[in-house]
Order: sequence, then C-alpha cells, then structure tokens
Amino acid sequence: MTQKQLARKKEITTEMIQAADYDNVTPEHIMNGLREGTIVIPKNRNHRFSAVAIGKGLKTKINANIGTSEIRCNLEEELQKLELAIKYGAESIMDLSTGGNLDRIRKTLISKSSIMFGTVPIYSVICELLREGKDIGEMTTDMLFNEIEKQAIAGVDFITVHCGVTRESIRHLEDSERVIGVVSRGGSLLKRWIEETGRENPLYEDFDRLLSIAEEYDVTLSLGDGFRPGAGADASDPGQISELLVLGELVKLADHRGVQVMVEGPGHLPLDEIEMNVQLEKKLCHNAPFYVLGPLTTDIAPGYDHITGAIGGAIAAANGADFLCYVTPAEHLCLPNLEDVKLGVISAKIAAHTGDLVKRKEESSKIDREISRARHQLDWERIFQYAIDPDFARERKKDSSQTDSNYCSMCGELCAIKIDGRKKTQKDTK
Amino acid sequence: MTQKQLARKKEITTEMIQAADYDNVTPEHIMNGLREGTIVIPKNRNHRFSAVAIGKGLKTKINANIGTSEIRCNLEEELQKLELAIKYGAESIMDLSTGGNLDRIRKTLISKSSIMFGTVPIYSVICELLREGKDIGEMTTDMLFNEIEKQAIAGVDFITVHCGVTRESIRHLEDSERVIGVVSRGGSLLKRWIEETGRENPLYEDFDRLLSIAEEYDVTLSLGDGFRPGAGADASDPGQISELLVLGELVKLADHRGVQVMVEGPGHLPLDEIEMNVQLEKKLCHNAPFYVLGPLTTDIAPGYDHITGAIGGAIAAANGADFLCYVTPAEHLCLPNLEDVKLGVISAKIAAHTGDLVKRKEESSKIDREISRARHQLDWERIFQYAIDPDFARERKKDSSQTDSNYCSMCGELCAIKIDGRKKTQKDTK
Repeated sequence: MTQKQLARKKEITTEMIQAADYDNVTPEHIMNGLREGTIVIPKNRNHRFSAVAIGKGLKTKINANIGTSEIRCNLEEELQKLELAIKYGAESIMDLSTGGNLDRIRKTLISKSSIMFGTVPIYSVICELLREGKDIGEMTTDMLFNEIEKQAIAGVDFITVHCGVTRESIRHLEDSERVIGVVSRGGSLLKRWIEETGRENPLYEDFDRLLSIAEEYDVTLSLGDGFRPGAGADASDPGQISELLVLGELVKLADHRGVQVMVEGPGHLPLDEIEMNVQLEKKLCHNAPFYVLGPLTTDIAPGYDHITGAIGGAIAAANGADFLCYVTPAEHLCLPNLEDVKLGVISAKIAAHTGDLVKRKEESSKIDREISRARHQLDWERIFQYAIDPDFARERKKDSSQTDSNYCSMCGELCAIKIDGRKKTQKDTK
Repeated sequence: MTQKQLARKKEITTEMIQAADYDNVTPEHIMNGLREGTIVIPKNRNHRFSAVAIGKGLKTKINANIGTSEIRCNLEEELQKLELAIKYGAESIMDLSTGGNLDRIRKTLISKSSIMFGTVPIYSVICELLREGKDIGEMTTDMLFNEIEKQAIAGVDFITVHCGVTRESIRHLEDSERVIGVVSRGGSLLKRWIEETGRENPLYEDFDRLLSIAEEYDVTLSLGDGFRPGAGADASDPGQISELLVLGELVKLADHRGVQVMVEGPGHLPLDEIEMNVQLEKKLCHNAPFYVLGPLTTDIAPGYDHITGAIGGAIAAANGADFLCYVTPAEHLCLPNLEDVKLGVISAKIAAHTGDLVKRKEESSKIDREISRARHQLDWERIFQYAIDPDFARERKKDSSQTDSNYCSMCGELCAIKIDGRKKTQKDTK
C-alpha cells in the first residue's frame, strides 16, 4: 500500500514519523496532509533512506538536478555532485542523465542517495531510440511504460511524467504565439511524438497504467509542465494554463487511486505573476504540492540564473510553493559542474528559507535570531555555526584577520555594534 | 539654483535632458518629477558627468559602495572597484572610506567618477577625531557642517545624513527590544553623540544649515536610516518607524526650500514586510525617492548576501523602491574585493531589472524578448550580446565547445528547442 492509502486507514507509518521529525511537526499533520493530498512522501518501497515529506505546513524542500549528458559523462563526477548536494542541504536529487550507461548510472546513484531520488523516464527511452538511429515517433507505448516500471523497480522515488501534453493543450500552445516555444525536453519529445504519430499522449491516455505502476512501488508522480514558459514573454499563456487544467484532472484521478502526486510549475515568470501562478496551481490541482523550477524573474542573466531563480523561488515559496528545483549558474549554458551544484543548492536553500520565514515564521526564524544574537555579541564562531555555508563564511572572514578577531576589515573601529554596545557597557557599569 | 528650483520655474535643463535620455522618458517627465519631489537628479554643480535621475516612472538605479577601511587601504584598488562598478552598470558610487587620507581618496575618486558620487560625511569627522585620540562626544556642530561643506565644494553629488536619529526616535528605539541594536555606523555614532552630550542631533536641529549647503551646490540629501533593522527580528519596529516619521517631516522642509531629497530604507526585512515598508516610506515621506540597502530577506547567509539582497531588492523595486544599494558577498564579513564588487553590482542589476519588468513592463521587457528570441534561434552570439555579463556567459558556454556550437553540454541532442523547432522546419518545407 502507498503512504497515502495507509494514511487513509489512519495508520501512522515509520515514514510519516521520520518526515514529521524532519519538519518538527506531528506525525498526524503528515498523515492528514497525505489523506487530503496536500502532502507527499516521495519514497519508493525499494529505496531505503529516512523519509522526508513535501507539502502544506512543511518546510520548503529543494531538489538538485544532476546527471550526465552525451557530451559530458563522468559517473565519478555525478557521485561527487550527489555528495555536495546532500552536504549543502538538498532534500532531493533528480538524475537527468542522458549520456553513458543510463541504467548503471541510475542504479549507482540511487544506491548512494540518502535523499529522495527522481527521474524523467522518457529521457532514457528516447536516448535509447536515438542511439539506435531511430526517430522519436518510433517510441511505442510499451517502451515508455516498461521503462517506467523498470525505474520503479530500481527504487526511483518520484518521476516526472508530462501527462498534460495532449492534443488539446498543444492546440492552445499553437495559439499562444510564443517567443521561445517549448523548452521542456520531455514536453518537446511528447509533443513531437503526438504530432508525428497523430496519437494521444500515452501518459494521458493510459494514465491508469501509470497509476498501477506508481501504486505498486509507491512512486510519487510529479506531473510535469511540458509547456512551462521558457521566457518571461511566454508566461501564464494559454499553452501553459491549458496543460495545468489537464494536470488538475489527473491529480484527482491519482488521488482517487491512492497514488501520491505533485504538480510541476514554471519556469520563467515575471515577479508579478508568481503569486498568481501558485494560487492557480493550488486551485486547479486540488492543493497538490507545487514543485517549481526557479522561477526565473528575468531572461537576461545567463551565468547568474541561480540568482534570478532565488528571487523567483523565494517569492513562490512565500506564496505557497512547496518544492523548489534549484537553478545553477550553468543554466542555459552548459552542464553544471561541482561548483555550480554547490551554488545552485545554496541559492535554492536561501530562497526556500526566505519563503519559510513567511510560511512558518515562528519555527523558521529561530536560526535567524540565533545568528543575529551572535552578531550582536560579535561571536564569530557562533555566526559561522549558524551560517548557511560555515566554511566559506570563515574563509572570507580571514580577509579581516590582520586585526583583533572581533573586528572585520569592513568597519574596523567604526563598528556600529561596538559603538552602540560600548556605550551600553558604560551604562551597565555605572 | 537647484534642479528642483529650475524645474519649478519650468526650465528644462541639460541635466534633465541627459536624465530623460538615459531612461527613455521625456524631459517633461523628469521636470515634473523634480517639481513634485518624486524624482531627484543627484548632481553637484562642481561634478561634471552625464546626469541620471532617480525616482518615479524611471528605471531602478543601483549604487555600489566602495572605499578603504583602516585595515585595508589601497587607493589603486578602490579606483579599480570604481571602474568595475561602472563597467557592470552601476549608476552611482558611494565612497565610504575610513582608512588613509580621506580627502585625497575622495577627490581622486570624484575626478574619475563618470557616475553620481555619494558619501557619508560624518565618517570623515569621526575618523579624524579617533585618530587624534578623542572621543565621539567631542565632535562639534561646526566640525560636522564644515566637513559637509568641504565635501559639497569638492563635488559630492549626494550625502547620507542621519537626521532622523533624534532624542525622540532613540526613545522609541530603546523600547524596541532589538536583537541586534543599531547597525548603521552613522546612526550609532550620532546616537552615542546624543547620549554623551545630552544634546539634540545637529543634523536635525540645524537642518536649515544643512539645507543651505545642499542648496548652494545642489547636493541631494539622502536621509539616512540610522535605525534600520540589522536583523529580520528587528524589522519594522518602533525605532525604525519613528525615525521614518522624522524623515517625512524633513522631506517636506527640504522640498519647501527647493533642495533635492531622497530617503534611505532597510536593511534586513522578511519578504512579507518589504511591500509594506515601501508603501509606508512613500506615504510618510511624500513620495520622495526610496533608496534601500538590500533588503536582506534572511540573516543566515553570510558569504551569499548578494543573493539575499537580490531577492529583497527585486521585491522592493517591483513595489516602488527607486534606488538599490548593492550588497556584496563580503557583507557582514570583510571589506569587498574586486570580485565582490562585480558580483554585488550584477546581483543588484538583476534585482533592479526584475523590478523594472513590473514597474516599466513594456520598456524593460524589450531586452528580455531579444535574448529569448536569440535563444529560440540558438543564436549564441546574440544571446551573449544581450546578456548581463557577456564575457562570463561566453566563457561558461565554452564548457560545451567540444561539439556543434549550436549545442550546449546540458542537453546535446535532446535540446527542446531543436526537437520542437526541427518539427516546425519539416512542416514549413511540406
């Protein structure tokens, strides 16, 4: 049985307890969220790790995409990325590999992953086809579902499935006069398959078959946004919203079946469309957890999209997004390297925590208060202890080390805290 | 006469025309904003450069703080920082030097600055006192005003003056039970001076004397927020707001005199207090341009505060803040180096542009559309051309150079744009 099905029987599972611990909530909170569909615990019954939940009333979680490409393929480096992502606090990893022996890479990464593990199964199917010199249109429904089942057996905790790329949503997309068209790989593949074969998306048409696999292994479905905007100019257009409408229907079907489900979202969004996008997802998709990529608030910053993503992610999280996919400085340019992964995770964590300071103010602000108190006491070791990246903060502070360790090279004697505090001390000793 | 006084006579000056050009608005827009006090043109009559305006209906401008400290003092490096800040698009520089020969540093930097130039004059006064072994309380009113006049003569375009640190606002601050007290250097100095001497802040009490100097050289007053919060926990408290009330009164007096004035704001603010802070400044300060430092949306990210500042700055700008002071990765740790200045400027530019995509959607989104079109065409040279940092984007793209230049190492063959576009081409040729 899935965690959702167990929750409906009012059973509190080990996974619910682990997830409750992580978020400092009660197991009942997790159980109720699973029942209502506002919370998921992406954890395949074949993958052993301490479970974490995503959804309403919980900390915003973050995902790091890793994986090889046909051009850069080095399993050792991917393992290091996994390690770095875990070190800096990612709760989830997605293996988006498209280069090398995909089964072997996936299995190795899962075996080393102490955090939830997601994939986009269609990538493997298409990579295989292209390697055989075949075309996308030659993919059969069985190929796709067999791959999904293989990955479910292997222990994948959640899968991105672009079920909302349908003939209907394609029609709305074509009317949308986009600047940049389709930017989701899965979305573009399925759109092309539909156009070449004239058939309906098997992930939509045979959604029950998908649900059966998901149910058996308790794989959480992450309903992909194949028509997410790839430019601010394309945001919130009929193509995007018509796909979201389909996803809303499917959330209901999954929920009915007791299969865990979340919904993916943009993408590129101007700042003033982020709140609306979160609200709309919650409304149309029955409050299913919302998993956003970024969103990126401007298109002009290749090389710095971890920053545009942090801006959008913070606003999305504050408004109710539950799960942020990191964006690295490599976005739009190349496959992320180790430093990119680190910067991507830290930026997404900053965004998530900024959102949590709104969503879960009392709980989340404790650490901010601690570091602020340490700052007031000029207690550098405690500042580092609570810092998001203690090693880096300590290293930068060394720039100030020519002097009294209480000082930093910015203000020196003119330290506001010393000037203000010094006076207080005088008053205290009067 | 000041630009504001000329605007009131309905004179369109060279400065207004230059500023209008920069922002692609009419000179009349600038003139009307100057008259209403919603726009300033910080430009000392003794500093020659092409004028830029700050305020309502204009692009969000950004400032880079540079300057020596007692511990790190290298004029050559500060000149390089100035150059970098200009290269990456800062419209303003503030010299916050506290180490070395301050007059010489300031003069050299002004002479090389083709952008507006600001200072905090009290720093020089106090540095001088401390070097002489004297205490803050020994500062005289004349010392402070003489320094301000000297800097006005030298061509400083705008000065931060903490006029709102008064006996009254200190009383409210003391009641505020802050976690971190006062974090503004100028604010802490004046608070201490008031407490040691028992007298009122001369910048408040002799505000007319300040206005006379500002009027003579057309120095724009930037009313400092000495009690800005230095922790999310201290945000929007009575100490901060009572100071803002004072600044509102002073804006009116300056406006009456025809002196240009803007208002400074936080600092550290949780995401959900940013909009309110902008609204309140506009309300209490008669829509004077709002100049914010960050704001930083969490306290936990020393080493990455350019990112927390970009999140807060973007939201502030979108809600009407007019001028963003950059925050660098060195914030809270050490004096910024060259790389910090670059990252600080780029992060603030991203925030400003994100805000402008809301405030001036049509005008500002042109560049986003251009880069998005270039992406759709996989026209890398045009992508770089419109990128915020062309050199860096080009350098990162080289990670993909083993292959067809149209490809990047992220997606390779599985490029959504190629998959989707390829099909279109087939259709086109049918």
